[in-house]
Amino acid sequence: MALRLKSSLLRPSSRLPTNLSSRLPGSMKPLTLDALNAQLQTVQYAVRGELAIKAEEYRDKLRQGDSSLPFDKVISSNIGNPQQKGLDQPPITFTRQVAALTEWPALAELAPGVFPSDVVARAKELAEEIGSIGAYSHSQGVPFIRKGVAEFIAARDGYPAVANDIFLTAGASVGVSLLINMLITSPESGILIPIPQYPLYTAALAQHHGRPIPYLLDESSDWSTSVESIETALAEARSQGTTPKALVIINPGNPTGALLTADTMKALVKLCEEHSLVLLADEVYQNNLHRAAEYPFTSFKKIVRELQSPVPLVSFHSISKGVSGECGRRGGYFELTNIAPEVHALVYKLVSVGLCPPLSGQIGVDSMVRPPKEGEPSYALWKKETDTIHAALAERTRIMAQRLNALPGASCVESPGALYLFPKIDIPPKAVEAAKAAGKEPDAFYALALLDATGICVVPGSGFGQKEGEWHYRLTCLCPGVEEYVGKLEQFHLAFLKKYE
Amino acid sequence: MALRLKSSLLRPSSRLPTNLSSRLPGSMKPLTLDALNAQLQTVQYAVRGELAIKAEEYRDKLRQGDSSLPFDKVISSNIGNPQQKGLDQPPITFTRQVAALTEWPALAELAPGVFPSDVVARAKELAEEIGSIGAYSHSQGVPFIRKGVAEFIAARDGYPAVANDIFLTAGASVGVSLLINMLITSPESGILIPIPQYPLYTAALAQHHGRPIPYLLDESSDWSTSVESIETALAEARSQGTTPKALVIINPGNPTGALLTADTMKALVKLCEEHSLVLLADEVYQNNLHRAAEYPFTSFKKIVRELQSPVPLVSFHSISKGVSGECGRRGGYFELTNIAPEVHALVYKLVSVGLCPPLSGQIGVDSMVRPPKEGEPSYALWKKETDTIHAALAERTRIMAQRLNALPGASCVESPGALYLFPKIDIPPKAVEAAKAAGKEPDAFYALALLDATGICVVPGSGFGQKEGEWHYRLTCLCPGVEEYVGKLEQFHLAFLKKYE
Repeated sequence: MALRLKSSLLRPSSRLPTNLSSRLPGSMKPLTLDALNAQLQTVQYAVRGELAIKAEEYRDKLRQGDSSLPFDKVISSNIGNPQQKGLDQPPITFTRQVAALTEWPALAELAPGVFPSDVVARAKELAEEIGSIGAYSHSQGVPFIRKGVAEFIAARDGYPAVANDIFLTAGASVGVSLLINMLITSPESGILIPIPQYPLYTAALAQHHGRPIPYLLDESSDWSTSVESIETALAEARSQGTTPKALVIINPGNPTGALLTADTMKALVKLCEEHSLVLLADEVYQNNLHRAAEYPFTSFKKIVRELQSPVPLVSFHSISKGVSGECGRRGGYFELTNIAPEVHALVYKLVSVGLCPPLSGQIGVDSMVRPPKEGEPSYALWKKETDTIHAALAERTRIMAQRLNALPGASCVESPGALYLFPKIDIPPKAVEAAKAAGKEPDAFYALALLDATGICVVPGSGFGQKEGEWHYRLTCLCPGVEEYVGKLEQFHLAFLKKYE
Repeated sequence: MALRLKSSLLRPSSRLPTNLSSRLPGSMKPLTLDALNAQLQTVQYAVRGELAIKAEEYRDKLRQGDSSLPFDKVISSNIGNPQQKGLDQPPITFTRQVAALTEWPALAELAPGVFPSDVVARAKELAEEIGSIGAYSHSQGVPFIRKGVAEFIAARDGYPAVANDIFLTAGASVGVSLLINMLITSPESGILIPIPQYPLYTAALAQHHGRPIPYLLDESSDWSTSVESIETALAEARSQGTTPKALVIINPGNPTGALLTADTMKALVKLCEEHSLVLLADEVYQNNLHRAAEYPFTSFKKIVRELQSPVPLVSFHSISKGVSGECGRRGGYFELTNIAPEVHALVYKLVSVGLCPPLSGQIGVDSMVRPPKEGEPSYALWKKETDTIHAALAERTRIMAQRLNALPGASCVESPGALYLFPKIDIPPKAVEAAKAAGKEPDAFYALALLDATGICVVPGSGFGQKEGEWHYRLTCLCPGVEEYVGKLEQFHLAFLKKYE
């Protein structure tokens, strides 16, 4: 989807000369797009693209008392941002109490009894290790927090992990961008990405002059990943002169919510061995599994260790998703597995130029990997809060998938994981024509009409990639009031089909 | 300075096969440096390079009770990190109180009377605008905070500023990297950087395949910047086929601490007009002026407006320096001036891929640009805290410069600004030879010897660039106990001269 920005959102400074060229002295040329890196201009990021910008405009209008719109609130289902206004998923109290105390340690004494004793102890422990959270930390992140991450990974997988292989980051995205930047050695370098994919991958590839090598996920078998589909993509890429460098797997999937089986994971690791690919495992939704008893998470780290595979693996995790939902802190980490010391040294050097990840994100990672334990004062509340969030997500996902599946011209895999659904929609030929006339992809046309009619902002499937001739959209399962919400989706869909039948 | 990492710091996971290639199945090749982006391997960042890594090792040794070292503490004078352990510049209480309340808003009622009323009001105001700080904000940063930044700029300069031209960032560095990435259109693109420079600039140029166009600052006239020196650099660059795209000015200077006069600034703006250069103004030390009455700060934004110049200007500021020193929050902003809407739209799109700057950094920016006002409950403490920090920095800078200037074979411009001194040191020919034999730059050799002898970590001048055959080092003026500290520097210097005389 092309990103078109509304001019009203882009008011330049009121003092910018309106006709710049007529005022330029001597040889001065204005700064125009043709003087800028052309490659960057190909970057696309639909999650915050045209739809999101238009939604923001509607929100502004409503705030200013505009009553001409057919809805009274805008619902941002375009982005996995649980704590945003209108969704209001509450933060985990433990996380925020620890954070408040690290911001102003004197509080523990100034407000005695307000903080549970385990919170006070945790904040004290962190302060001793970190000093002030206003100081730069180690470029890889506070060693003590990385140690906690390593212990979390070891407990999860049953295989050891070490702090030195962990790099704390400002969310998973910067880590992904860095690794893609490192792996692209020439414009012929390519990276295998699933279709549909989270558009960070194509954006990072565009930014770093690399080629996406798309492989298709199979909607007909619950968005499964197959070795055959990747082999096909590899063969085609090679025939076009592309050198495959890495395989991206998003598990649980974004936007699909699919979860890989252990057998598929093993086959994928073997495939990486065979084709000398680095495995980039985006596992940021590992704690978003709605039927975890039936579909437990298995990490690629565990599979690589089990197989004693030498495949170089970089695994990404984040505090933005899961039940933490702390997007605004910008926290996460990646773990290097089977990476030689000189490559590790290069990663270190590159992250050191950016000095360090935000300390508030690092503290957030600590809370995620070391939550209160049974028997500790904060445990009961933590358990109640996280159970409530898990249950709400599971229930909303179930209801939404069920209702969308009952609609004519719509179908939806009921995903076991992540925060999204990715329904397929039939778009009538007349609507496809109308979209073409408007210069839009048909699913973007549908999504814009949905926004205009209901105030619900989703992301068109074309922003993630999909099979030729198919149309989808991604929406989050974060919205409270699911009955009313899905009712609006249904009503719009039926009206749309009718209008263009 | 080449970055050489100690192997002990880079312990790979204990499970990495020791002889990887002997265990590789089928066609699997290990991931080695030659399979990675070669350009990235040229990145250098001396501030966190060899010296800093060795200092960290010494600190670990001391922590483990090692008494074989000739010092009992490591002093990290390599980096402007005021709140780090051992320097312990206290954070501004107002900033941290507001931050604690935004982390856990319930505190205002749970701990009545603990927070001053203006802090409670500020936190409430921010919460109303932002919602949860655990949510992603607008990609450019919270509109309300950007409005505060625009008002701060307008009050500082006497010219209007608008929120839409402000991009909040995770510190100034990411903004600088982004702009350099945008401006480099081909490997022939060049950007004018001062010598000595802050190595972020050469690092970002290396990362984005651009050429530095070095222009010399004049140490003999207090590190002044001259148009002639830039004209010379431009002519030479053009003769080598380089296309100059932008001029970087660091004001106050890093590492020099120099402050530009308004006349020089006007001449530089005219030069940018003449040569169609974008002006990148790194103004992160604008609040670090030790004799502010004599040397007040003037922004390039003000000069550009005064001259009614059409020069495209990007100005950078940060919460990491000044009296705030909140490095760990990762907060800052850049302002676009004379930038056309389509370029603004491209900047927006690129920052949106990274979602948003950390909210704790954004809150920090708010505190910096909207400190307590006279008459408000928090004003007296804020005034006392900031005055104390300013006075300490001024006093330490004065004493250190004076004492370094009194040494044989050392001279030091007593800078009016920033957090550093950049003394010139004579290195005896025998020491130059010894350095060569050790494969080091002479000033890196000196700095390593200083670290080994005293535990003081500085950055060699070769990490910033300097005139052929001259040697310097950069040290921060952040260290308390300045008498003892500078005593160690003197003692070492004299012993070094004696050893190699």
